[in-house]
Amino acid sequence: MMKKKKLNIGIIGYGVFGEFLSKQLVKKHKVSCIDPFDKSKEAEEIGVDYYPMFDMMSFLSDLDVVIIAVPMIEFEDVVSKLPVDKLRGKLVVEVCPLNSHPKSVMLQNFGPDVDILCSNPMFGPSLSDNNESPSPVSWDGLPMIYEKVRIADMRRCDKFLSIFERERCQMVEMTAEQHDASTSDAEFVTHLTGRLLDRQLLPPTPVMSKEYAALCDVADMTAADSFDLFYGMFKYNSRAKDLLKKMRENIAKVERQLAAKEAYLAASAEMKNNDRKQLIEECKILLREVASSSNIAAKVEEKDGKPAESKITETSQKES
Amino acid sequence: MMKKKKLNIGIIGYGVFGEFLSKQLVKKHKVSCIDPFDKSKEAEEIGVDYYPMFDMMSFLSDLDVVIIAVPMIEFEDVVSKLPVDKLRGKLVVEVCPLNSHPKSVMLQNFGPDVDILCSNPMFGPSLSDNNESPSPVSWDGLPMIYEKVRIADMRRCDKFLSIFERERCQMVEMTAEQHDASTSDAEFVTHLTGRLLDRQLLPPTPVMSKEYAALCDVADMTAADSFDLFYGMFKYNSRAKDLLKKMRENIAKVERQLAAKEAYLAASAEMKNNDRKQLIEECKILLREVASSSNIAAKVEEKDGKPAESKITETSQKES
Repeated sequence: MMKKKKLNIGIIGYGVFGEFLSKQLVKKHKVSCIDPFDKSKEAEEIGVDYYPMFDMMSFLSDLDVVIIAVPMIEFEDVVSKLPVDKLRGKLVVEVCPLNSHPKSVMLQNFGPDVDILCSNPMFGPSLSDNNESPSPVSWDGLPMIYEKVRIADMRRCDKFLSIFERERCQMVEMTAEQHDASTSDAEFVTHLTGRLLDRQLLPPTPVMSKEYAALCDVADMTAADSFDLFYGMFKYNSRAKDLLKKMRENIAKVERQLAAKEAYLAASAEMKNNDRKQLIEECKILLREVASSSNIAAKVEEKDGKPAESKITETSQKES
Repeated sequence: MMKKKKLNIGIIGYGVFGEFLSKQLVKKHKVSCIDPFDKSKEAEEIGVDYYPMFDMMSFLSDLDVVIIAVPMIEFEDVVSKLPVDKLRGKLVVEVCPLNSHPKSVMLQNFGPDVDILCSNPMFGPSLSDNNESPSPVSWDGLPMIYEKVRIADMRRCDKFLSIFERERCQMVEMTAEQHDASTSDAEFVTHLTGRLLDRQLLPPTPVMSKEYAALCDVADMTAADSFDLFYGMFKYNSRAKDLLKKMRENIAKVERQLAAKEAYLAASAEMKNNDRKQLIEECKILLREVASSSNIAAKVEEKDGKPAESKITETSQKES
């Protein structure tokens, strides 16, 4: 019976990702959200209660789980303004693309009676080509990375994680630091690539290769994201600047390779042509020598060969 | 009984793609190949007969189908050197990533008694991360585009195409010109992206998002390709230069956006700070005014207010 009790989940920040998450959460749990912008309509549509920011106290009052789903670059600011006393006895979950920064912010701001879960559901909404609204996505097999940073109420934490287990996510437990070290470069490059591939570079085609379809998916994913999300992945990853530089250098490299190939092919076509000319030239010289020596042989017999020889010399001078 | 008769298929050019194709073809048909480099070992391993270039006449003598699987940039040169008389009554198939150029080359060089099929199997070998040799790929659902440019022997052509049908390819019939107009930009961008994403930009990670895994696939596909293949897609697509330029511009754009965001956040943090300072300053002034006016009121009663007022002025001078 205890297991069937719904969780009362509140989402701080009802942006694209908050809304995306709540669509699954609301299936089995009571979900509410709070956002500086009026999201009452979007929330109501899927059965989520919306609270305006000034109503933070009543929003927090009844919650079991608080998910902070704000852009990573606003995370510290948002957390520092929370009435932290009201979080006592609750489970606070962050869902940022990098985990070390939010982890340290939460440890600094929350007392020991607040449970902390860091997580990165490595998936999110996507804008399909046909439809400008985020499309529903199966979570089957998609990675959900988490660290139980400080958990007193294990049962509640497991119940929350079981939401992802039941959707058949690939559950991966690792520390925030491991997570950032091993996946942040990959995620930055993925989002960077998506941002490079705009509609002009991905024209719609009646037939798609598997790889092209995959690139369109990557671009659709990025199109649904806010720039702030991407900026956070850049700001809190010290290697991101180098990755961006490498991408720029790789474009320059491909351009150089194409130019070099073009020049090489032009040169070898010219050389082939020159070779043929040279061969013809050498044949002519050989033929002349043959002709000349037979002339000399003839002249030796005649005892005077000058006119014939000078004629050949004259010709070869003209041509050289 | 006729339908069960094997086709005798010869592949001109036994590079990565020729070898990739022959692995499927050899399951039900007799396959041979010819290449300037000694491919006897690779060919023998999968049951394909290898011929050296000087043996072109015996290679061609018994074939039903001739597949020309050379880089597009060598296509014209290779075709012009073929003993075209020996192709009479045969089906010649090209498998280039663009079809208009090979189509016009074949129409120019082959007499009316040579059957011509243009095709683009939109898939190929891929280098997986674990394995440096091309991995076997299911063709299920992958697009096979073709144009029956000139076919006298329909039965033979259909038998050849049924190889792809049986592997459950998505069979798409369209003219070479339609094909090039609708898919060549997409294919160039796919291969370009794969070439930009080298190993340094795609570090191995223990957990991958679906999108990152897709980018790794695109990079693996490109890693198996020759640069000549890519160069052909560049050379025979008049829009490729613009697409490359757009990609470079998009990188610059992302870099500008990141720099702008950084500057904007720095500026607004500074402004917020200034605003707070200014607010404090204004509050102080107001408080002083209140203090001063109550002092004056007091002084009016006392008939002498100088010491109190001068004290406040002194303090505000210190702070400014």
